[in-house]
Amino acid sequence: MEINGVEIEDTFAEAFGIQVSRILVTAATEKLAKIAATEATGYGTSVIGCPAEAGIDCYVPPEETPDGRPGYIIMICNMNKKKLDHEVMERVGMCLLTAATTAAFDAMEDADEKLTTGKKLKFFGDGFEKKLEIAGRTIFSIPIMSGDFLVEGELGIKAGVAGGNFFILGDSPSSALIAAEVAVDAINAVENVITPFPGGIVASGSKVGSKYKFLNASTNEKMAITLKDEVEDSEIPADVNGIYEIVIDGATEEAVKEAMKVGIEAATKVPGVLKISAGNFGGNLGAYNIKLHELF
Amino acid sequence: MEINGVEIEDTFAEAFGIQVSRILVTAATEKLAKIAATEATGYGTSVIGCPAEAGIDCYVPPEETPDGRPGYIIMICNMNKKKLDHEVMERVGMCLLTAATTAAFDAMEDADEKLTTGKKLKFFGDGFEKKLEIAGRTIFSIPIMSGDFLVEGELGIKAGVAGGNFFILGDSPSSALIAAEVAVDAINAVENVITPFPGGIVASGSKVGSKYKFLNASTNEKMAITLKDEVEDSEIPADVNGIYEIVIDGATEEAVKEAMKVGIEAATKVPGVLKISAGNFGGNLGAYNIKLHELF
Amino acid sequence: MEINGVEIEDTFAEAFGIQVSRILVTAATEKLAKIAATEATGYGTSVIGCPAEAGIDCYVPPEETPDGRPGYIIMICNMNKKKLDHEVMERVGMCLLTAATTAAFDAMEDADEKLTTGKKLKFFGDGFEKKLEIAGRTIFSIPIMSGDFLVEGELGIKAGVAGGNFFILGDSPSSALIAAEVAVDAINAVENVITPFPGGIVASGSKVGSKYKFLNASTNEKMAITLKDEVEDSEIPADVNGIYEIVIDGATEEAVKEAMKVGIEAATKVPGVLKISAGNFGGNLGAYNIKLHELF
Amino acid sequence: MEINGVEIEDTFAEAFGIQVSRILVTAATEKLAKIAATEATGYGTSVIGCPAEAGIDCYVPPEETPDGRPGYIIMICNMNKKKLDHEVMERVGMCLLTAATTAAFDAMEDADEKLTTGKKLKFFGDGFEKKLEIAGRTIFSIPIMSGDFLVEGELGIKAGVAGGNFFILGDSPSSALIAAEVAVDAINAVENVITPFPGGIVASGSKVGSKYKFLNASTNEKMAITLKDEVEDSEIPADVNGIYEIVIDGATEEAVKEAMKVGIEAATKVPGVLKISAGNFGGNLGAYNIKLHELF
Repeated sequence: MEINGVEIEDTFAEAFGIQVSRILVTAATEKLAKIAATEATGYGTSVIGCPAEAGIDCYVPPEETPDGRPGYIIMICNMNKKKLDHEVMERVGMCLLTAATTAAFDAMEDADEKLTTGKKLKFFGDGFEKKLEIAGRTIFSIPIMSGDFLVEGELGIKAGVAGGNFFILGDSPSSALIAAEVAVDAINAVENVITPFPGGIVASGSKVGSKYKFLNASTNEKMAITLKDEVEDSEIPADVNGIYEIVIDGATEEAVKEAMKVGIEAATKVPGVLKISAGNFGGNLGAYNIKLHELF
Repeated sequence: MEINGVEIEDTFAEAFGIQVSRILVTAATEKLAKIAATEATGYGTSVIGCPAEAGIDCYVPPEETPDGRPGYIIMICNMNKKKLDHEVMERVGMCLLTAATTAAFDAMEDADEKLTTGKKLKFFGDGFEKKLEIAGRTIFSIPIMSGDFLVEGELGIKAGVAGGNFFILGDSPSSALIAAEVAVDAINAVENVITPFPGGIVASGSKVGSKYKFLNASTNEKMAITLKDEVEDSEIPADVNGIYEIVIDGATEEAVKEAMKVGIEAATKVPGVLKISAGNFGGNLGAYNIKLHELF
Repeated sequence: MEINGVEIEDTFAEAFGIQVSRILVTAATEKLAKIAATEATGYGTSVIGCPAEAGIDCYVPPEETPDGRPGYIIMICNMNKKKLDHEVMERVGMCLLTAATTAAFDAMEDADEKLTTGKKLKFFGDGFEKKLEIAGRTIFSIPIMSGDFLVEGELGIKAGVAGGNFFILGDSPSSALIAAEVAVDAINAVENVITPFPGGIVASGSKVGSKYKFLNASTNEKMAITLKDEVEDSEIPADVNGIYEIVIDGATEEAVKEAMKVGIEAATKVPGVLKISAGNFGGNLGAYNIKLHELF
Repeated sequence: MEINGVEIEDTFAEAFGIQVSRILVTAATEKLAKIAATEATGYGTSVIGCPAEAGIDCYVPPEETPDGRPGYIIMICNMNKKKLDHEVMERVGMCLLTAATTAAFDAMEDADEKLTTGKKLKFFGDGFEKKLEIAGRTIFSIPIMSGDFLVEGELGIKAGVAGGNFFILGDSPSSALIAAEVAVDAINAVENVITPFPGGIVASGSKVGSKYKFLNASTNEKMAITLKDEVEDSEIPADVNGIYEIVIDGATEEAVKEAMKVGIEAATKVPGVLKISAGNFGGNLGAYNIKLHELF
C-alpha cells in the first residue's frame, strides 16, 4: 500500500490500555494557560520511567470554556488508577494552583469514574474555600495569594489507549525529523489524543531485555540507524538513513486511529520519506493491534 | 528604602539548602534543544509535591558548547541526594535520550561530587555503546533509533540554595502580574539560577499547618488577596490588590542574590507596583536569610 | 448596558471600506508556515503610514489545505486596488516565494474580483515554470533554489471593512493591557478578520489635525492617559488609569462584528476592566457605524 | 578546505554597501518588546522588492538598557539615505509608537550621521510632548492613549554591508533546511548583524535578466534543485538534493564575516550537509568580496 507515493508497511501498532484524565486549564490569557499546561504535563513521556504520560491535547478559545477564558485541555495518564489519582492531584496542586490566574475543569466526556481531586484540594483553603456552581459544574474556589484558584470538584477518568504509534523512515535523519514534526502538527488538530514525548517525537526505540542481567530493556539495535551496517540482522532498509517514531495516547481507540491516519498522511508529504512502519511486540502484549492498512 | 520609587520592605527571604545538578542539553537546532529542556524540567515547581525542582537556566550558543551545537543549561534539584540521583537519571533517560538529536553534558562548575548518570545510562546501549572523548570530557555514545545519544559519564552536583524569593505587591492583579513577568525576564539573564514555578511566577503562598488535622500546609490567608477584607489580621496594605511571588533556586547564594536584585529592579519599573516584600518563617527554618536591603 | 459587570458605553465604532485579499500560506511544517506568514504581514498596521494593513487570520491544519500541509491564512488590505495589487505581488514575491518550503493559495470566499499575482509571478521561472491543477485550482510551479514554489494563478479580493474597534478602559495600565491581550486571543478564533497592530493591540489614538501647520494628525490628548489631569476636557473617567484599543479589519461586516463581540466579552472578564468604549469621528467619515450595544 | 568534514568551496560572497540604522526597542516585558520589534522589521527581506531590509539583531536584558526594561535591537537598512530616513520614520511611528509600552533608543555605535526621527516624531504630541534626558540621551516623551511613548531625538546610521551570504548544499532538502536553521541560530549570537529573510533563510536565488523582455531578474536555473537533471549546465553536484542560502546584513564587514564563520561552522555539524558555497556576480558589482577560505 502507498500513501502519497510512500510505502505503508503491512504491519500493526501494538497499543495498551491506560487510565486517562482530561482537564481543561483556563487562564487570563492564552499564553498563561499554555505556560501552566506545559508545566503540568512535563516529565511525562512514558510510564517506563516517568510518573505519568502527559501532554497538551488542544486549545479551547474563550467563547467555548466554562469561565469564558482561553484554555488548553491536557491529558494525564497512568496504567494504575491510584498512581493516576496521585499524579493528577500533584500536577493540579503543584503546577496549576501555583500558576498565575489559572482554573481547572473536567474535560473528560463519557468518564468511567471520577477522581475527587478538587474535593480534596479545597482543604488547602483552610476553611476559606467556597463551593460555587459554574455552567452546571460544582467548583471549589480556593483563596490563594494572587486571587482565587477555581477547581472542579470531580475530574473524570476513563479507560483509554496508550502507545499508538508509527515509524517514519527517511533517506536522511533530517527528512525523517521534519516529517515527524509535521506529523505532530497534523495530530495536534485531532481531539482526545496527546503525543507525550518531547515535541511529540520519539528518537529512541527499545526492546525487551538486554545482555546485562540487571537491565530489563535496552536499545533496539535492529532499528538503530548507526548500527545499520554493524548489526547483522538490522531491519533498516538500505536506503533509509533516518528514523523517528510518533507515539500517541488517546481517550479512545478511534481518536488514536484518527491521529495515526492524519499523522501518516502529513509525514508522507515530506520529500525523502521512504516508508511508514509501526512498532509491536508480536501482538500478544497489548490489548490493541492497530493495522496501518486499515487506517486508510 | 526605595528602588525606582517603590518601597522595599525591611525584611528577608528565608532560603534552604538543596542539592543541585546542572546539565547542558544540546541539539541540532535551538528549538529542538528547548523542547527537550522544557520536557525534562516540567512537573518541577517545588519538592513539596513534585519529585524535583527544575528549570531552564540559560541558553548557550553553538560556538560555546562542547559539540558546537546550540543548547540550554537546565538545573534539577532535590534536598535528598538519592532522590536527586534518581530524578537526574529518569529525566535524562526519559526526556533527553528520547528527544530528537539531543546530547547531555555536565555544566556544573565547582561540583562537590559527581552522579554517574552517563556511566549507568550507557548500558541501555546493550553493548553497542562506545566511550568517546569530546573536549576533554568522557562521553558515552548510545546508539538509538534515530542516531547516537551522547551523554557525559559523570554529572556534577553541589550544595546550592532553594527558595530565594520576593513578593511583588501591586495596585491591581495585572500590575503585579506584568511586574512578575518582567522580573523573570530579568532573572533569565543571570546564570546559575532557575525560577522553577510555571513561567517563573508563583500565584500561591502557604503557611505551616491548617485547621484540618490531616493537612500540614495550607493557604496563607493573611497574604491572600481576596481575603484582605475578610480576614482580620490580613497583612496586605489597603491599596494593594494584586500579589505574586518569585521563587529562585541557585547553584550559589551569590547567584540567588543577584537574581533577586535584578528581578526587583525590573519589577519596580512597572507602573502600579507599590511594594516589594519577601517570604520567611522567622529565620530559624532555612539556612539562608537574605535581607532585601542588603541587595542594593 | 453591562457585560460581565462592565459598562459598555452607548457609542459606535466607525469603520471604513477597504479592499481585502486573503491568502493561504502552506509549508512543510506549521512553524515554517508561521515564519513566512509573519514576515509577509509585517510593517502593516495602518495605511496611514504603512504600505498595507496586514495580519494573520487563522491556522489551517494539514487535513484541510489543498496540498495537505499546515498553513496560515493571511489578509493584506489597502483602500486602493492598484496599491493592493502591488502589495500582494511584493509580499508574496519577496516574503513567501523566498521562504523555506512555502506555497500560496487563494483563500478568499465570494471574491469580487481577482488579482493575477500568480500569473505574473510565474515569469520569475524564466520559462521553467509549469502550470498545474491542484484540488481544482490553477497553480503555477516556479523552480527556485530549494525546490518548487507553488502559487495560485489568481488571488481573490473583495470589498471589506477596516477599522472596526473598541477601547478597553482599566483601573491600571496593566489591567487594560492584559484585557487587550485576551481580547486578541478571543478574536483569533474568529475567521475572516485580522487585528493588524503589533500583537493586535493599539497603544496610541489620534485626532484629525494638530497645532502644527505641517501635521494633519496628532495625538488625541483627550484620550491620553498621562494627560488626564493636565488637559481640561479629558474624556477619561477619574478611576481609569489605562487604555488600549483593539482595531479589526475584516472581509465582511459580520466577521468584524463577531470579532468585536467576542473580544469585548473576553476583555470584560479581566479584573480591573472598568468600561468598554469605541472610536468614531461623528459617523460621517466611515461607511460603517457599528453600535456596541447592538453586538449583544 | 574542509570544516567539520564538509567541503568549503574556494569562492567568495559578493556583498554591497548599504545604509544601516540600529534601534533598541524596549518594553514592559521581553514578549512585548519582541512583538513590536517583529512588526517593525517585517516585509523587509530585500530592497529588490521590499521598502527596506530589516531584522532583529539581538536581545538586551533589562540591566543593560537605558530605561532598565528588556529590549531588542533591530536594524533597518536601505541603499538610499532618503529612503532609509522614510522607512525608519514610518516603522518607528507606525510599528513602535503604536505598540504597547514600547520606547525607542539609538543603538548605533560609531554612527556616520544621525536621522532626526525622534525630533520629527515628537510633533505627534501636538504640543504636549516633553524633552527628557535619560542616561545622557536626549529623549522625547510623546503622550499617547496608553501612556508616554519615549523616542530618542536622533538615531544614528552608518555605511554597512548587505548581502553577505553562503549556500548550504545537502543530500536532501531537509538536511539543508535544518542546517540553515542552526546556521541562523548561531548567527543570532553575533551582534551587529541581521538575517533579513523569513526565519533568516533564503529559499530562492536569482540571476540577472530573463528570457522575458519585461523582467530584469529571474530564477537562477543552474542552482535550482528540481532543474538539476533538466538544465544542461546545472551547477549542482550530483549527490546534492537540497540547497538553502543564508543572507546577512551587518553594520560592519567584520560582523558580517564573523556571522558567516559561525553560521558555516554550525551548518557543517548537521549530518547530510555536503558542501558550503557562496553567491557572487563575478566580483565587480559589489564593494565587498568575502572569501570563504579566509574566514577560518
